[in-house]
Amino acid sequence: MTKTCDVAILGASGYTGAELVRLIATHPGMRIKALTADRKAGQSYAEVFPHLRHLDLPRLTTIGELDTGGIDLAFCALPHATSQEVIAGLPRDLKVVDLSADFRLKDPAVYEKWYGHPHLALDLQAEAVYGLTEFYRDEIKGTRLCAGTGCNAATGLYGLLPLLRAGVIDPDDIIIDLATGVSGAGRSPKEGSLHAEVSEGYHAYNVAKHRHLAEFDQEFSKAAGRKVEVTFVPHLLPQNRGILATIYVRGEGEAVHKALTEAYAGEPFLVVLPYGEAPATRHVRGSNFVHLGVIPDRRPGRVMVFSTLDNLTKGSSGQALQNANLMLGLPETMGLMAAPLFP
Amino acid sequence: MTKTCDVAILGASGYTGAELVRLIATHPGMRIKALTADRKAGQSYAEVFPHLRHLDLPRLTTIGELDTGGIDLAFCALPHATSQEVIAGLPRDLKVVDLSADFRLKDPAVYEKWYGHPHLALDLQAEAVYGLTEFYRDEIKGTRLCAGTGCNAATGLYGLLPLLRAGVIDPDDIIIDLATGVSGAGRSPKEGSLHAEVSEGYHAYNVAKHRHLAEFDQEFSKAAGRKVEVTFVPHLLPQNRGILATIYVRGEGEAVHKALTEAYAGEPFLVVLPYGEAPATRHVRGSNFVHLGVIPDRRPGRVMVFSTLDNLTKGSSGQALQNANLMLGLPETMGLMAAPLFP
Amino acid sequence: MTKTCDVAILGASGYTGAELVRLIATHPGMRIKALTADRKAGQSYAEVFPHLRHLDLPRLTTIGELDTGGIDLAFCALPHATSQEVIAGLPRDLKVVDLSADFRLKDPAVYEKWYGHPHLALDLQAEAVYGLTEFYRDEIKGTRLCAGTGCNAATGLYGLLPLLRAGVIDPDDIIIDLATGVSGAGRSPKEGSLHAEVSEGYHAYNVAKHRHLAEFDQEFSKAAGRKVEVTFVPHLLPQNRGILATIYVRGEGEAVHKALTEAYAGEPFLVVLPYGEAPATRHVRGSNFVHLGVIPDRRPGRVMVFSTLDNLTKGSSGQALQNANLMLGLPETMGLMAAPLFP
Amino acid sequence: MTKTCDVAILGASGYTGAELVRLIATHPGMRIKALTADRKAGQSYAEVFPHLRHLDLPRLTTIGELDTGGIDLAFCALPHATSQEVIAGLPRDLKVVDLSADFRLKDPAVYEKWYGHPHLALDLQAEAVYGLTEFYRDEIKGTRLCAGTGCNAATGLYGLLPLLRAGVIDPDDIIIDLATGVSGAGRSPKEGSLHAEVSEGYHAYNVAKHRHLAEFDQEFSKAAGRKVEVTFVPHLLPQNRGILATIYVRGEGEAVHKALTEAYAGEPFLVVLPYGEAPATRHVRGSNFVHLGVIPDRRPGRVMVFSTLDNLTKGSSGQALQNANLMLGLPETMGLMAAPLFP
Repeated sequence: MTKTCDVAILGASGYTGAELVRLIATHPGMRIKALTADRKAGQSYAEVFPHLRHLDLPRLTTIGELDTGGIDLAFCALPHATSQEVIAGLPRDLKVVDLSADFRLKDPAVYEKWYGHPHLALDLQAEAVYGLTEFYRDEIKGTRLCAGTGCNAATGLYGLLPLLRAGVIDPDDIIIDLATGVSGAGRSPKEGSLHAEVSEGYHAYNVAKHRHLAEFDQEFSKAAGRKVEVTFVPHLLPQNRGILATIYVRGEGEAVHKALTEAYAGEPFLVVLPYGEAPATRHVRGSNFVHLGVIPDRRPGRVMVFSTLDNLTKGSSGQALQNANLMLGLPETMGLMAAPLFP
Repeated sequence: MTKTCDVAILGASGYTGAELVRLIATHPGMRIKALTADRKAGQSYAEVFPHLRHLDLPRLTTIGELDTGGIDLAFCALPHATSQEVIAGLPRDLKVVDLSADFRLKDPAVYEKWYGHPHLALDLQAEAVYGLTEFYRDEIKGTRLCAGTGCNAATGLYGLLPLLRAGVIDPDDIIIDLATGVSGAGRSPKEGSLHAEVSEGYHAYNVAKHRHLAEFDQEFSKAAGRKVEVTFVPHLLPQNRGILATIYVRGEGEAVHKALTEAYAGEPFLVVLPYGEAPATRHVRGSNFVHLGVIPDRRPGRVMVFSTLDNLTKGSSGQALQNANLMLGLPETMGLMAAPLFP
Repeated sequence: MTKTCDVAILGASGYTGAELVRLIATHPGMRIKALTADRKAGQSYAEVFPHLRHLDLPRLTTIGELDTGGIDLAFCALPHATSQEVIAGLPRDLKVVDLSADFRLKDPAVYEKWYGHPHLALDLQAEAVYGLTEFYRDEIKGTRLCAGTGCNAATGLYGLLPLLRAGVIDPDDIIIDLATGVSGAGRSPKEGSLHAEVSEGYHAYNVAKHRHLAEFDQEFSKAAGRKVEVTFVPHLLPQNRGILATIYVRGEGEAVHKALTEAYAGEPFLVVLPYGEAPATRHVRGSNFVHLGVIPDRRPGRVMVFSTLDNLTKGSSGQALQNANLMLGLPETMGLMAAPLFP
Repeated sequence: MTKTCDVAILGASGYTGAELVRLIATHPGMRIKALTADRKAGQSYAEVFPHLRHLDLPRLTTIGELDTGGIDLAFCALPHATSQEVIAGLPRDLKVVDLSADFRLKDPAVYEKWYGHPHLALDLQAEAVYGLTEFYRDEIKGTRLCAGTGCNAATGLYGLLPLLRAGVIDPDDIIIDLATGVSGAGRSPKEGSLHAEVSEGYHAYNVAKHRHLAEFDQEFSKAAGRKVEVTFVPHLLPQNRGILATIYVRGEGEAVHKALTEAYAGEPFLVVLPYGEAPATRHVRGSNFVHLGVIPDRRPGRVMVFSTLDNLTKGSSGQALQNANLMLGLPETMGLMAAPLFP
């Protein structure tokens, strides 16, 4: 019989918090014992997220009111900067899966450069494991603090890491053109996230300066064993969920396809499509699956790699749950096998 | 330990077929043994529905190729008229859940009036049980043939049946204003279902002549013990899933709310909101839940009842699975407790 | 040769302000001399609304910086309460078309009841003409201050005023079920207007207590010559533009259709569809047209009236321009004949 | 005083046909004398496109019934292959603007390669002028047959032609990543154009083999004075209108920006944004404008060029009208200056 682990979700009033609750609702080995959201403390979860009103959940509290006794693991779905401060104040033996950007970057100088302020919990940063499960599985099993990846970063990394490791592409000529749904921008009201500003339109944003570039640099360079810098242009899609990276590389199409296929053989969530097929964001919606495709260009030596996932699931909360399963000794796929929702 | 039942899905290339596969994919007591789709026979299911490509499923066959040996239950997701013909040809001891309109109407003359041709399987029609689970649970447990309800019909029935039974509203002054997502129109290409024709717009269709009126007449009259005719105006929403009925009745708001609350106490999927709150289609998306609300008008004696469900889940395939669970002796909620997907 | 009138737009950073600029951009008899937006003062209009960057427009200023010398007419697209304060401070001979709710209600007590504070410019309120052009054309021609109608109010009024005047419906049994796009909620960031909260979903809001009820009460009672109170339930659509009112009345269908047809014969913007046809919001998008339809219920004596318009055009800024044309002695339809944008 | 030219639209039941009617509706120098649509002959235009029901238009006829007497110019919005056949049968002195792919490619062998059948009107093909107005203005003024460009092709060409002419980029390393709305796929019912298949999702299609590659090859090579082959990956957006090309080139950002700015100085419809800014499809919706942006990559020597237009307007029908104005001796911008519709 499966054991049941008790978890808390800190910062439960955002979309990644709600996605965690949604997934854990039918997880047979996990139970939600506490939910915090400072500005909405005192409210029932049904008031904040009516789609989860059928669940029997604890009321929202402030972080200050949180009792960590009996909690096996805490998910932190807080804004960056806040997250490092809060986690630094938690008991040192409490397992933590962080969904913010705070513990993704190994080099404090890089963190400071991209996030604009010094890191305030350097010891925790040193200890944290980067949460790209399929590439850090063993470290995640043994860690106390797991840092969730950027959602765009994960999408690009899944498409490229095996190719850089296998040496089948030119590391100096990589372009990641990416399109993402708007839920990644969170639930805080912003003009740029309004329906009237997002629907029926498409545009690039943070061109060549998106913060997930820091993760790309760190992980690609590590995989290639040398410095790798890519071009990265994200776009905003008129949809809520889903990221698609269209990656332009130099190499041979079949070798690229083979490298991906071999790297992900046996992986429960990574699906490589037949050679020549392109994936779609709608076909992974609401799921923990990643679909990958490889299509050769008409110009020899050029290849397109496509990688798609749901930013709220595999790109953040599903990934977090997968890592929590590993950290708690539960089966890795537990609570995560639901099929995508289409249409 | 749970037993495993083997099922077939006939007409698996439409949206309700795919929704059945999606739900059964994580159902612990059911296994898909056959999938048919005459025009797509020979294709893999992944070719037809790429979002389900991670599943290990049988190839699509024609109905003629179907071997019913060892099948415990067949879901028929075929067009009406076709359905009665196909089901008439199945072994008489094979349990069947039909998702078409063919076996919903008890009176053959009414069927002929609304569907434009005589019914060709009158014995089956006599035997079929109307699949509105919460109101026909015992009959469904014992039947061999269960007729799925119309998705719009279910939405209206959930809002009104308890009120007519309890006698808390005037049965002669009921207006059902309803709005539905476009997936209810199916996957067959039609001009009216194109993205360019549906998005960014809203309109009424089949005004005062929608076929689900026949179900309303049958079930409301039965519940009230007298003839009841309602006004019914459906509208098409620029979204894929979800139906919301806004029902205008005469009665006292609190009595109406009480009648709904009492009728659905203990029901796992029917959630009555606190008095004065309105539900939203997005908060039941992809789930088997129904959300109901009651708000009094400013004019005394007038009340609005709101009822919302996902047309592909509780409105068809989720309902079908719930009924199949009952017919197979499985727990009624098995495979159906996933929380709604939002956003 | 047409004269050219100089206009100012106060509160130009919202959607109704931008819609005015869009329409006036190709208006042969009007020229924009000033644009104000206190919080965005100093910015170019292209920064605030990039879709209008091809136009040569004045920079945004504060209202305090506005020089009204040489201005023939000011459009006020400010929030209610602010509007009455600002307009009270303008020169008494400056013509004003107000788009806020401030001058719509004749009875100060009614204003205070619905808007929660006493009116601060009672003399202006007394002087203002209600801007439903087709019903107040002569008064508008002669007024100095025209009060734009509520966008939902206009939609309902167009469907019902001729019927109440002609006495062809029962004034005691009117239900207005209405659905509106989200641009009516404005450009200020709010959680409820986010893409992730609006798209792929539908729900009722402000049920039986929407402020446009005050306009319905005032205008319907006036038209009927007796007190008329309607039931009114607005819903939010997952689209930007467009309002559709589905109005349930008691009367004879053909008489209702005839009353509408006769009332709007010769009106350039009001189009009554053939009897039995239903209009769609997408078919008036971006235009100043109103489409109206009448369909009888299957139950004798009951009729559905449909009325649709674009909330930003005929529901606010297009209406404002039409009234401004009248007030300035320009042809009423000038700058307003562009066909709807579909798809 | 402006003269009035009489025009016919052949193939008026598709989206480009309707867009022509929409634009010509307020064109002061053009009048629609005939509308054809073989399968919908006999219907009123209001039945086919209700958004244009306020217009006084001729009924749809078959092409066989078309009387070209008195017609100054015919727009052909027919499917490719059909178009060449129909145009070959028109009087040789009738001016024609063709919106199909039939006369875009100068080399018959290239046409046959990409479209799969030999060209049947080689003399017309020889005579036709490619309709990219800003680059072929003088030829268009004098031609009898103008070939509309592909909508994707136009988007890419506007971003790149001045750069290849000016020699500021490497012609051997050009990647065009493009995203387009679904109206480009037309009004014929197809599974892939259904709302349920398009909304809330994004994917690449026709990767490295889209037919507009033929136009790119022809025009880029001509501009560069040598063979140029680009990589081209189109994607389908969950929106109706708008194309955005994100073009990855090698060069210096400011030189690239300068080349575009200089090339389009004085052009009424081509707007180059300030250096470092990215355009959005929603900001050109429904208009004849093109917005272009240039942003340097963080990697020296790499630049991103963005080009956006509305596929139905500047990408086809607006372009066609602009060319027709030239061919008829009317002012080039007549009927085309309406501002984009946002939101």
